Parts: sequence; structure tokens; C-alpha cells
Amino acid sequence: MSAGPRLTETELIKMIRARAGGGTGVRVGIGDDCAVLEPGRGLLVVTTDLLLENIHFRRQYTEPADIGWKAMAVNLSDIAATAGRPRWALVALACPEGTTAAEVEAFYTGALKLGDEHGVVIVGGDTSVSPTGWLVNVTLIGEAIRPVLRSGAQPGDVVAVTGSIGASAGGLALLEDGRELPGLPASARARVVAAHLRPQPRVAEGRWMADTGDLTAMIDLSDGLATDLGHITIESTAGARIHLDRLPVDESTRAVAAALGRDPLDWATSGGEDYELLLTCPPAAFEGLAAELREATGVPLTAIGEITAGAPRIRWLDADGRERPVAPGFEHFGGEGRRG
Amino acid sequence: MSAGPRLTETELIKMIRARAGGGTGVRVGIGDDCAVLEPGRGLLVVTTDLLLENIHFRRQYTEPADIGWKAMAVNLSDIAATAGRPRWALVALACPEGTTAAEVEAFYTGALKLGDEHGVVIVGGDTSVSPTGWLVNVTLIGEAIRPVLRSGAQPGDVVAVTGSIGASAGGLALLEDGRELPGLPASARARVVAAHLRPQPRVAEGRWMADTGDLTAMIDLSDGLATDLGHITIESTAGARIHLDRLPVDESTRAVAAALGRDPLDWATSGGEDYELLLTCPPAAFEGLAAELREATGVPLTAIGEITAGAPRIRWLDADGRERPVAPGFEHFGGEGRRG
Repeated sequence: MSAGPRLTETELIKMIRARAGGGTGVRVGIGDDCAVLEPGRGLLVVTTDLLLENIHFRRQYTEPADIGWKAMAVNLSDIAATAGRPRWALVALACPEGTTAAEVEAFYTGALKLGDEHGVVIVGGDTSVSPTGWLVNVTLIGEAIRPVLRSGAQPGDVVAVTGSIGASAGGLALLEDGRELPGLPASARARVVAAHLRPQPRVAEGRWMADTGDLTAMIDLSDGLATDLGHITIESTAGARIHLDRLPVDESTRAVAAALGRDPLDWATSGGEDYELLLTCPPAAFEGLAAELREATGVPLTAIGEITAGAPRIRWLDADGRERPVAPGFEHFGGEGRRG
Repeated sequence: MSAGPRLTETELIKMIRARAGGGTGVRVGIGDDCAVLEPGRGLLVVTTDLLLENIHFRRQYTEPADIGWKAMAVNLSDIAATAGRPRWALVALACPEGTTAAEVEAFYTGALKLGDEHGVVIVGGDTSVSPTGWLVNVTLIGEAIRPVLRSGAQPGDVVAVTGSIGASAGGLALLEDGRELPGLPASARARVVAAHLRPQPRVAEGRWMADTGDLTAMIDLSDGLATDLGHITIESTAGARIHLDRLPVDESTRAVAAALGRDPLDWATSGGEDYELLLTCPPAAFEGLAAELREATGVPLTAIGEITAGAPRIRWLDADGRERPVAPGFEHFGGEGRRG
């Protein structure tokens, strides 16, 4: 870190210590060689994710607080996908020369705001000057009694998704497009931009659904439905059939797609970064799970297809039952950043 | 990753899975949303470190295998400083366009070689293309029954250091200088370059010494003696007196310093990246600790000074007892990368 009002590492540590909520299980937090933590009696679930400027985000429309929020969110989403309870984060941050103390502080404010909502304490990290743009690596450690994996889907299981999908890709398309688009309602713009910059990981929803005991597999939607469902089918050695007309795409996303002349289904299948949960469960369990999830958390759960026997191949069907091609994978601008 | 023989993420995961040693406590390793781990009954000790090209290393004299080794070493050293047992690593790697599959594989080979020596299993990570040079973040999770902290040093305690110091800074100076220096013995060059590129973290030594119950504080020498001893004095609210003529600087380091016209004491006090252990213990315990450590591990332990009462100020004395100025901190080339 450098220039502007300069923040020394000691000041940085003091600032984070002052802002980080106290946490149970933290014997020693930031400031020793290691954090010293007291785990509970469950298993540990751990994940790490890199966010790089000009690969995963652009500074022109991403504020430091957004970077902090998203770096925390993408890791929280991985913990959510195992039905874990997130607990402790390590945050490594490198900023270019000229980054101000206020910008660094805003980054941590964004990370801590979301972390606090989910009971996460920042217990360690690293800082450096960066030779190029901002770069962040967050490692999140959580706990789970019975973690849900990608590998348990069974032929006949319902494939379902929380919330709605495609909004984040719509937000990215809008931000990259950069135009005003006067016909587009401000609320639609705000919704998809927030979905992209400030995703809400489904932590409580993941744990709640896993506690019912009905889930057979779960993954978070980071690389897009086609890629992430592909992970479930490969790990579960099964196929899947998805009904494109059942994909939950919200009105804001449809409005943005119309304004940009894009197909919102492309965003829903291949857009990535929705951070919704994709799961499978026995058909008999689905209706109860969806009704109770909405009752408990307000979040809808939509059945979008079925797991099939045989090779890990996904068939995408339109409303008339005709198979449609869907591009797997997720093209980020300028590179191939992938979320773990 | 890109160009050359291209390595997909799936191939990368397959390669790491095949090379990573099996590990106890790993329910689910690489390939799900999170790694799922079974902790033992102790506390967790966790640390994370960034290594950035052109901040922490230069590619012109650092091979991919060296990057992997060092990214693992700096984290192992933090675990060593708490007397922990390293167990699980998460490795996030971003490489520039044009990086070959062989280079990526060599990186993991270097990381796994050192990790295997210390019983570490790579259980997760992230990969991305990098907008600039190589960048690596390793998070290491270990376990400790009674972790040693920086904060327990008492007035009267002996200040001691394992191995010898200044060699890594000598190696960096030699690599940066780039000249042949015909008068310099090849063995001296090899020794200091290895100290810089392939440091040997003192994991077994840290645990062995902590098991004697005699240590009051410990830290690893990453930022240089002046800075790291400063951390102990600040956290312990005590001062220190260091005898410059007692600093263990080996013959190779002295030979390199002579060849470059540098003072090896500067490297020993302010050079950084030695990854030796700096510790404090009651005076009555020192001789036994040093003799038994050498017997058990072959590594020397040298008393270099004493903890003093009062403000956290360090006094540096020459052989005649005169106070000498010593620059705190550690100037890395081109930036201010800091090790946590």
C-alpha cells in the first residue's frame, strides 16, 4: 500500500482488529504467526478463492467495498454449498501503488459487512503492494456435521435451484455495455447490478435444507448452470435433463436482456456468478422442501429438471420437449477466471 | 493458464490428486466446493501468504518449482513458529497467458516436494489466468496442543536463533547482482542461493523445542531479525539487548558479502527471509535446549542476547559493548512485500 494517506501494516492490523466482531473459538486472531482457533466437534469445510482485477472485476465499476464484499461472498457460497457454518476468514490483499488508506479501509468494511452477517471473523491475512491491479485471496474455514457433496445425486432425483438465475450475468453485461438505456427501469438495473457486485450467498438456506436430511447433492452456481450441473453429474456418475422453460429468471433480468437485445436464457444457463444453490433431492421430498424453505427463509426453490441414469450428459429441453444446444462454461471478460 | 500444451482445470485437478500424498484427516480433498477435513483434538493454527512476481521474486532466477517450494515454505515457517503440526494446504495460483502445462506442473512438484517432507496434503485451491506475472497464495492449516506465541517473553530470558542468518539476503543480493564473481567459491554461491530460493522451514525443530516446555515466545525470521524481534518485544511489552558479534552468520554468507563488498551483519539484522526460528527461554533452560536440539536434529541454537525490562526497544551492541544503529525492516526489491 502506498501514497495518499499511507496505512502501515500495524495501522491496518489495528483497524481490522477494531472492526472485526469478536468471535467465539478465536484464541489468537490477527497479529501472531498464525491464528489459533478452537474448532467445534464437527468436520472442517475449507475453501479459497482468488479475485483479480481485470480478470474477475474491473475497477471502473467495482468499488473497493464491492471487492471486499464479493471476495467474502464467493467463499461463503462454497461453504453454503456444503451446508457448512462459516467461521473464520484469512484475507490476503495486494493493492497497486497509489491506493489510499480510505480505499483499503473500504475494502475491509465491505468484507466485514457481509462477514458479520454470517458470523465470520477475520483472523489473519497478508498484505503486499501489487505490481498491477488489486488482487484478493480469501480463505474461509467453516464447520459442518454432515457436509453435502456433489457426488450423491441419484437417477430420478429432482434438480432444483434457489432464488433466480442469470441476474449476475445480466448485471455484468449492463456494466460492460456502459450505456444509459433510458427505457430500462432503474429498479431492474439496480437489481441485476447488485446481483453481480453484491451477491448474497445462500448460507442459511444451505444449512436449513441440509438439516431436513433430504438433499442428495449440492453445489453453488459460480461458473454457470451448465458447468456446475456438469460437476454434479460427473461426480455422481449420472446424467440430467433440464427444462429450459422452468429456469427461474426474474423480471429485472428479462427487462435488461430485452434492453440489450440478449437472450436471458443464455445468462441463466451459462452466465455464472449467481451464487444460488443447485441441489438434488428425491422427488417425494421436493414439494415439502420448497414450501418449508420459502416459509423459513422467504427464498423460492424451483424444480428445473431430473437426474437421469447413464453417462454424465445433460439434455436441455425447450417447452415443446425439443433438445436445445447449451454452451457449457462461462466466459468471463478478458480471461478464464474460474470460481472453485 | 493458456498456450503451450494447455492444461485444463480438470487435468490440473487430476494431476494434483495423483501427486498429492494420501493424508489422514481428509474426507474430501480437491474437487468439491470445499475440502472436508477431520481435525484432531488440538487447536487449529492457520496462516496465509501471498507471493507475487516482481514483488517477492523475479522469474529470471526463480523457476516454477522454486515458486511452489517457497510458497509452501513461508507458510510452513509460520506454523513452525507456533510449534504446530502442519496438515492441510490450499493453493491458489494465477499464471500469465503463455504459461505451459509443464511450468504449472513444475510449480506443484516444487510445492508438493516440500509439503510431502512435512506431511502436508494439498486439499484445495483456485486457479486463474493472471493479468501480469505469477501470483500464488497458500493457506496452511495445522494443529497444535500448546501453540507458542510472540507474547510470552520475560525480562531476563535468553534470545536465541536456530541455524544461521543473513544467508537468504546474501543469496538475493547475489542473484540481483547477476555477476559471475570468479573469486567466490561455488559452494558459497550454492549455499546462499539455496537459502533464498529453497528455504528449509524449521518445523520439526519448533515442535521439538516447544515440547520441552521451556519456550516463552517464538517467531519465524521472515522480515529480518530487527523487525521480527520487534514483534516479540512489542507483543511481550519488553525490551531486548542483542550482541552483534554473537549473530550466527555462516562462512558462505561472509564470503558472498566480501565478494560483493557488503556487510554481512546488515543481512543478518535486516535482511529477512531466513525462515529460522527466533525464540526466548529462561536462562537456566538455554544450555540444555541447545545441546539437545543439536543432538536431536543437528541444528544449532545460538544465544544472541537477552530480553530486558521496560519499553519495547532493542539495543544492538558491538563486541566492545557500544550501541550500534540497526535499520529495522526489510527492503525487498521494488516494493514492500511483507511476510505475515
